[in-house]
Amino acid sequence: MNVFGDKWSFTSFGESHGVAIGGVLDGVPAGLHIDFDMIREELLRRKGATGYGLPDTGVSARAVREPDEVEWLSGVLDGVTLGTPIAFIIRNKDARPEDYEYLKHTYRVGHADKVYEQKYGLRDWRGGGRASARETASRVVAGCLAKQELAEKGVRIQAQLVQVGAETDPNKFAEVIAAYQKEGDSIGGIVECRITGLPVGVGEPIFDKLQAHLAYAIMSINACKGFEYGTGFGGVTQPGSAINHISGGIAGGISDGTDVVFRCVFKPTPSTPKAGVKGRHDACVAVRAVPVVEVMTALSLVQFL
Amino acid sequence: MNVFGDKWSFTSFGESHGVAIGGVLDGVPAGLHIDFDMIREELLRRKGATGYGLPDTGVSARAVREPDEVEWLSGVLDGVTLGTPIAFIIRNKDARPEDYEYLKHTYRVGHADKVYEQKYGLRDWRGGGRASARETASRVVAGCLAKQELAEKGVRIQAQLVQVGAETDPNKFAEVIAAYQKEGDSIGGIVECRITGLPVGVGEPIFDKLQAHLAYAIMSINACKGFEYGTGFGGVTQPGSAINHISGGIAGGISDGTDVVFRCVFKPTPSTPKAGVKGRHDACVAVRAVPVVEVMTALSLVQFL
Amino acid sequence: MNVFGDKWSFTSFGESHGVAIGGVLDGVPAGLHIDFDMIREELLRRKGATGYGLPDTGVSARAVREPDEVEWLSGVLDGVTLGTPIAFIIRNKDARPEDYEYLKHTYRVGHADKVYEQKYGLRDWRGGGRASARETASRVVAGCLAKQELAEKGVRIQAQLVQVGAETDPNKFAEVIAAYQKEGDSIGGIVECRITGLPVGVGEPIFDKLQAHLAYAIMSINACKGFEYGTGFGGVTQPGSAINHISGGIAGGISDGTDVVFRCVFKPTPSTPKAGVKGRHDACVAVRAVPVVEVMTALSLVQFL
Amino acid sequence: MNVFGDKWSFTSFGESHGVAIGGVLDGVPAGLHIDFDMIREELLRRKGATGYGLPDTGVSARAVREPDEVEWLSGVLDGVTLGTPIAFIIRNKDARPEDYEYLKHTYRVGHADKVYEQKYGLRDWRGGGRASARETASRVVAGCLAKQELAEKGVRIQAQLVQVGAETDPNKFAEVIAAYQKEGDSIGGIVECRITGLPVGVGEPIFDKLQAHLAYAIMSINACKGFEYGTGFGGVTQPGSAINHISGGIAGGISDGTDVVFRCVFKPTPSTPKAGVKGRHDACVAVRAVPVVEVMTALSLVQFL
Repeated sequence: MNVFGDKWSFTSFGESHGVAIGGVLDGVPAGLHIDFDMIREELLRRKGATGYGLPDTGVSARAVREPDEVEWLSGVLDGVTLGTPIAFIIRNKDARPEDYEYLKHTYRVGHADKVYEQKYGLRDWRGGGRASARETASRVVAGCLAKQELAEKGVRIQAQLVQVGAETDPNKFAEVIAAYQKEGDSIGGIVECRITGLPVGVGEPIFDKLQAHLAYAIMSINACKGFEYGTGFGGVTQPGSAINHISGGIAGGISDGTDVVFRCVFKPTPSTPKAGVKGRHDACVAVRAVPVVEVMTALSLVQFL
Repeated sequence: MNVFGDKWSFTSFGESHGVAIGGVLDGVPAGLHIDFDMIREELLRRKGATGYGLPDTGVSARAVREPDEVEWLSGVLDGVTLGTPIAFIIRNKDARPEDYEYLKHTYRVGHADKVYEQKYGLRDWRGGGRASARETASRVVAGCLAKQELAEKGVRIQAQLVQVGAETDPNKFAEVIAAYQKEGDSIGGIVECRITGLPVGVGEPIFDKLQAHLAYAIMSINACKGFEYGTGFGGVTQPGSAINHISGGIAGGISDGTDVVFRCVFKPTPSTPKAGVKGRHDACVAVRAVPVVEVMTALSLVQFL
Repeated sequence: MNVFGDKWSFTSFGESHGVAIGGVLDGVPAGLHIDFDMIREELLRRKGATGYGLPDTGVSARAVREPDEVEWLSGVLDGVTLGTPIAFIIRNKDARPEDYEYLKHTYRVGHADKVYEQKYGLRDWRGGGRASARETASRVVAGCLAKQELAEKGVRIQAQLVQVGAETDPNKFAEVIAAYQKEGDSIGGIVECRITGLPVGVGEPIFDKLQAHLAYAIMSINACKGFEYGTGFGGVTQPGSAINHISGGIAGGISDGTDVVFRCVFKPTPSTPKAGVKGRHDACVAVRAVPVVEVMTALSLVQFL
Repeated sequence: MNVFGDKWSFTSFGESHGVAIGGVLDGVPAGLHIDFDMIREELLRRKGATGYGLPDTGVSARAVREPDEVEWLSGVLDGVTLGTPIAFIIRNKDARPEDYEYLKHTYRVGHADKVYEQKYGLRDWRGGGRASARETASRVVAGCLAKQELAEKGVRIQAQLVQVGAETDPNKFAEVIAAYQKEGDSIGGIVECRITGLPVGVGEPIFDKLQAHLAYAIMSINACKGFEYGTGFGGVTQPGSAINHISGGIAGGISDGTDVVFRCVFKPTPSTPKAGVKGRHDACVAVRAVPVVEVMTALSLVQFL
């Protein structure tokens, strides 16, 4: 349902245009000093306000209007975790449900509007409700705590955009995205993530293989269409004799002490002027997915440590 | 750990060269008539004894020597499920731990031998123990029951090999594999799986998105290096305006009533003569992965239905 | 940790004197009309403000000062559940952490202050933090939704005080409690709960027997020291031939269609003037436990339905 | 369903008169040396073959005929656990389903026969199937491993019969039981269990309170009708000033470092000659429940350690 993990159990809640979105993180040990600045920065990064010099292209209108302010409700005293559940909310200050009135009786193409209504019998038509990517802000808050815990143990997670459309030169990404933006169209991207400092032995041999849990975490991000690690799909053309020294950091489902590297692909958003959706749009959602990939990786890893 | 799913909860156990491998399937409703013939056939298919006309190349020595005979211990009366846990075992009749004595103090390249010992402090050196692909036979037995339940609800799962090395013409797969076999080398492959008849509404909106759960299930198969659905990795070069009518059968994490299609890649086995491992070998493990992809898909889907 | 149940999964959070207490209820089906009045009434009942005509004796000072106002954050639109997680909070408007400053370096007898500090290395000294019975207000809110869902299915839960000290005549309870109140002492009580309308077949045969799950739910209430159903402890003196027609509504762990009746005992509070704790006190916490027994019963039952 | 615990996850399977009963224990750390003699002894104790000098009265006919022989299938190498799932079975060598043919169309009073059929639509009529107390033999095997792990950490669990009918003098228990046996009747009993050596900090503050989890474990034992700890039901007549130094070893749901003491009551069996059931019978099932109380306590505690 809406819970991720059983050791650091993260429950996400909130509709995009309801009172608030938020989460509860249960299982965080007592004594962790929270770095609130880092959380603020990552929330900005999720909005696309930083990175790739794309403030004018890759940012949604809402991102600009509404700063994400985290209100901490429990589990923290003087900036230190208590070992009790950590609840937080981000109010939807600038929610404009009326902007979405037209969706009451319409389903957007490429969106989940229709299946939601079919599944639940009713839906929150206000801006996609739960299906909105706004929900990932809660993931960023929770995942930053996971990242901080991991950092204390020497584990670092670093994701980056490695491909936009057919372009693989990062210096040209802004240009490519700007072109699609201008045309009212959108384009996909590939994000690569590297985990360094992970000790040997993380992951379980059969079902909870490290790669299986990471794939589960990453594929739960909106617009993600694929996950690969190590030799990935590209390795299919290479014989065993050529590639079997490449582990991707995992052997038999268990980390082997070398860097874990995986890649994931994000499809272009269907909400574009070209598709008849008015207003500003994200020409390449993969840009904003980068910090979300990192926090979902962190939330996956803390379940094992 | 060794449990998959919480509705149809499947626990897998057994070392490759211990007394037996087996499983317990808890949560199967009462009244399901088990098709034992289908299970036998799928176990043969997993051994590579059928399919692609590759009996002499794609089959391990052990597969030939040791027929998989399922012993049903509980949960079934007169071929019908009782609603109680279904336990079954497959004895390791032809286990030859002595063949693996040399592994007591050796770690095979590309295998999990070393990380197991690092993780647990000790390991079952007999033929890989739990890490052996033999464990997937238990998955096939359990997954066949899931497939039967799904079939009764009109859901069909069909996987097939769609690429071997760079070759995408199925008629040429046997030839390609035979060539690698002859050279004592191995090659990877891509399996495509199609789910038909799935009703609208399967999957949960946030973390337990249908694609996330499928990725988790599939990435838990030995040698699997990547998972993609819908437009997948290839879609990255296409603009939103060109591909956003392609859903891959899933919208917002929930099945939309059209066929779900996904693909996964299997790396070549590291245990080859070229790598110094004696005896017969699987030149393309992707062949034998096909029925395993199907049963893991089935075990994933029954959690939602 | 802080989660109850896996179908209607209830996460409770909040420190007694922090910003807020609250909860998230995940798994509630879409379309349930929430009866907000009933929730308000049950919250009052939990405070001891109603029932047994004991407003002056059985009510804590805080209960009077601070009305529990529920703020709904998500999962509800126009009073109807959306099928998404329902998050709510009750702000600690009148929290006075400074009243508890003296507890920073003191452990109260009969309280959990000391074990918390030993377990977590630190604790929220403000009024017991998580250990405070105030946390049960969140249970009441979540449990009322469960009660409403059950009521729609014809299941009713009714608990009542049946013993205070040695007294079993309800008409004399107020008198007995008043006497202990006056002496600055406290006394225990027994609550009986009856579930009517429960269909046959609720509960699982082995571990999740209905009585086991109910015991788990009820024994999680502060100050509860025992649980019994059917013939209970008293039945030990009766031969099988005399009592084996009494099922208590459960056979082999599964409801049999007759009323389920169980009893539970609450010890007297240790925080009394006689024990050196100043201020008003609850002379009989069992009074306020009655609605909590009902909601925990409801939260237990909805996991099975 | 049929799984107990999530750290040491124990799955129980098997019908009383099917091929075998057994279990899988997942999560046991590698390196535990199994004491097989202790397991054999505890299985005998469960049969009532030892203890209270009651071989002729408290033992069922089947217990005498069929020695419980454990067959270990996986997870163990040379008597040492591997860290992989431990599967074991006990074959029903002397199963005589034909003795129960008459039950195909009959429901026994005080048994679960009828609710099983109502719940599942069909049932295994052979000797009660899953509902038979024979299932507890699997619990004993799994629980003995838990006991051994706990013993290595200095935790000891000791249960004993403290009351039979109205009798509380252990020297007179054999006499009381023999009298009921002779009359073809049965009688209940109370078992007390003491946990020594438990470190401070075991248990979770809110729902997974130590007492709640123990109650859940104990109330899952067949014929158990009540659970109490510390001052229990008897404490209801004592004022707070008299009893609040008695913790029962638990404060706020968390062990406080003193002995944990709890009591549970077992009703008399309904299967007696007086009730029309032929053959030998257990005049006091509480005798045989003693070792089961110990192993369920152990299985509960290992989830926390």
